[in-house]
Amino acid sequence: MPKSYNEICQSAKYKLTGHGDRRIDALMECFEHMDPSMEADIYGTGGIINDFEKDIACFLGKENAVFFPSGTMAQQIALRIWCDAKGLKNVAYHPLCHLEIHEKDGMKILHHLEPTLLGTKDRLFNMEDLKSVNKPIACLLVELPQREIGGQLPPWEELISISEFCKNGGIKLHLDGARLFEILPYYNKSAADICSLFDSVYISFYKGLGGIAGAMLAGRTEFIESAKVWKRRHGGDLISLYPYIVSAKHSMNKRIGNMGKYWQHALTAAERLNKIEGVSTVPEVPVCNMFHAYFDTTKENLESIFADIIEKYNLAIVRNIREIDNSICKSELSFGDSFELIPQEILDKAFEQLESEFIKLVEK
Amino acid sequence: MPKSYNEICQSAKYKLTGHGDRRIDALMECFEHMDPSMEADIYGTGGIINDFEKDIACFLGKENAVFFPSGTMAQQIALRIWCDAKGLKNVAYHPLCHLEIHEKDGMKILHHLEPTLLGTKDRLFNMEDLKSVNKPIACLLVELPQREIGGQLPPWEELISISEFCKNGGIKLHLDGARLFEILPYYNKSAADICSLFDSVYISFYKGLGGIAGAMLAGRTEFIESAKVWKRRHGGDLISLYPYIVSAKHSMNKRIGNMGKYWQHALTAAERLNKIEGVSTVPEVPVCNMFHAYFDTTKENLESIFADIIEKYNLAIVRNIREIDNSICKSELSFGDSFELIPQEILDKAFEQLESEFIKLVEK
Repeated sequence: MPKSYNEICQSAKYKLTGHGDRRIDALMECFEHMDPSMEADIYGTGGIINDFEKDIACFLGKENAVFFPSGTMAQQIALRIWCDAKGLKNVAYHPLCHLEIHEKDGMKILHHLEPTLLGTKDRLFNMEDLKSVNKPIACLLVELPQREIGGQLPPWEELISISEFCKNGGIKLHLDGARLFEILPYYNKSAADICSLFDSVYISFYKGLGGIAGAMLAGRTEFIESAKVWKRRHGGDLISLYPYIVSAKHSMNKRIGNMGKYWQHALTAAERLNKIEGVSTVPEVPVCNMFHAYFDTTKENLESIFADIIEKYNLAIVRNIREIDNSICKSELSFGDSFELIPQEILDKAFEQLESEFIKLVEK
Repeated sequence: MPKSYNEICQSAKYKLTGHGDRRIDALMECFEHMDPSMEADIYGTGGIINDFEKDIACFLGKENAVFFPSGTMAQQIALRIWCDAKGLKNVAYHPLCHLEIHEKDGMKILHHLEPTLLGTKDRLFNMEDLKSVNKPIACLLVELPQREIGGQLPPWEELISISEFCKNGGIKLHLDGARLFEILPYYNKSAADICSLFDSVYISFYKGLGGIAGAMLAGRTEFIESAKVWKRRHGGDLISLYPYIVSAKHSMNKRIGNMGKYWQHALTAAERLNKIEGVSTVPEVPVCNMFHAYFDTTKENLESIFADIIEKYNLAIVRNIREIDNSICKSELSFGDSFELIPQEILDKAFEQLESEFIKLVEK
């Protein structure tokens, strides 16, 4: 059987994006410097989980935090708690919110919450969109950065306005901070500064941080105590979560200081892509380590172009190419440890080849 | 601060029950012989998860299986699927079913299912109880062994009758097999023999098998495909579950052949306890590696007696003592690797001291 395009990418020595392959030695590495006699956590108790929860709560400037196996679970629960507190079913979020498109409607089917979609799919929502909501909502979810439109961010002042609007309107404000660490360099704020605008915050340990899995939900103690009850109801209160906790701590120590560098990689790559006719990025100038790239050609053409580059230079530029219509393709690029392993000459030549292939396409 | 009784137990060199302390090196051990370059699972796909699911499905004689982070999640989902298929809300189970007493009512609050409790809390339910249910039920959950009454089992013939009753009545039969491996020696049947009586089966990897966490749900392919959708809704479709999978495989290889031995330990310990006046076990003759022990004295007295034994012989006989009323205490004992590490002389002397302490209590 011939290799699929993603398998060809997988086999490339160099990758433009990511932290390298997801291999099981990632876990083994995390445990290398651990004390083997350390006691496992048991159903949410024990130093290994509770100390980490305290550390993260402190880092986010929140009273308390609880570790979750997944963000899907953490966020549904956060919204449910805020809705129950207000006696309402309505939450508001972006039309491409994770809960709306990636969770098989868990929020609706398990929790019977009803979303109000703010703005349109192709842009950030703004204060106008928020003000035009014509029914009472218990909670607003803001995702920073807005992943599905390339990782865009509102201006800091707009965030403050949103936060004040919610405070004045008795609306709880929840942060989908799956990529919170990744945006700190752009806002040039601490995590606690950003989180101070929100009533509850979810963060992930496996996006920019590159951990194995796991999430944290932070907020006031009363909120976190409720979240622990819901965590058990969801089946997330595992007897032991330490494999993910050890990995989360390790990955955070390893990569928390790299976010500015990853952003710089994204800026460099986006600039090179935007120079090519028939290629563009959203946003044009990335505000964190990610963006979406658009290519004016078919998936078949594009995969063939990138496969040739892999064959020649051993560099995979984009993976997971999605055809939007017959002549435009899209791919998400998130930058991490892999970028700086690419020799400059290979990077230059690969992009030169990409450019010359697109010149040929335009000429056709 | 003086040590709590459980901390004193923890510090004992020898333990009557369990597989030893839950320490993080349990995970490290599992990875020792793994190929470090093995690819991680990604959202339920990849050899590391899918091969294990296939192996377990085969072992249980089922068409398909899906790995879950927890049994709480797996079982709520199983019952939900069967209820949706029948268009009913009612499930039947034992009054001390895990879903009834340990899951903060997740099944009721997340899935709006309504339980019919069969029989009474102090015994197994039987065919009479089942026949007396006077409303339509979608699904019957049978827990083998029934943990909260000491791990009791119905006769094999009764299981067959229950299975036939359900088949004839269009009721789906689900097995809570959290301790399925532990009961194979008693029934002297294969896992597949037992599972053939059930439409769906949940098994756990951290009870008798001693893994870190994780569960498997098995059944027909259509059922498993639905379960995967619900797994995502619940937030259980983690990007990678391999830490638990590697541990589950390792623990299964290590302990699957030990269940007869663990049962024998339980038989030995129960026999010794039942010889003491004021001490009894339920069941009197264990049918697997577990039983409950009852002690006719206060918790304070009992902890003091066992703490003295630990001080003298370095052996913890029971942990987690629960006072039922002012003069009766209860503890659950589950046997594993620890039992055979106890030198015979220490075991004898510790039980002799326990007996002499109870003689003193009776004389008072």
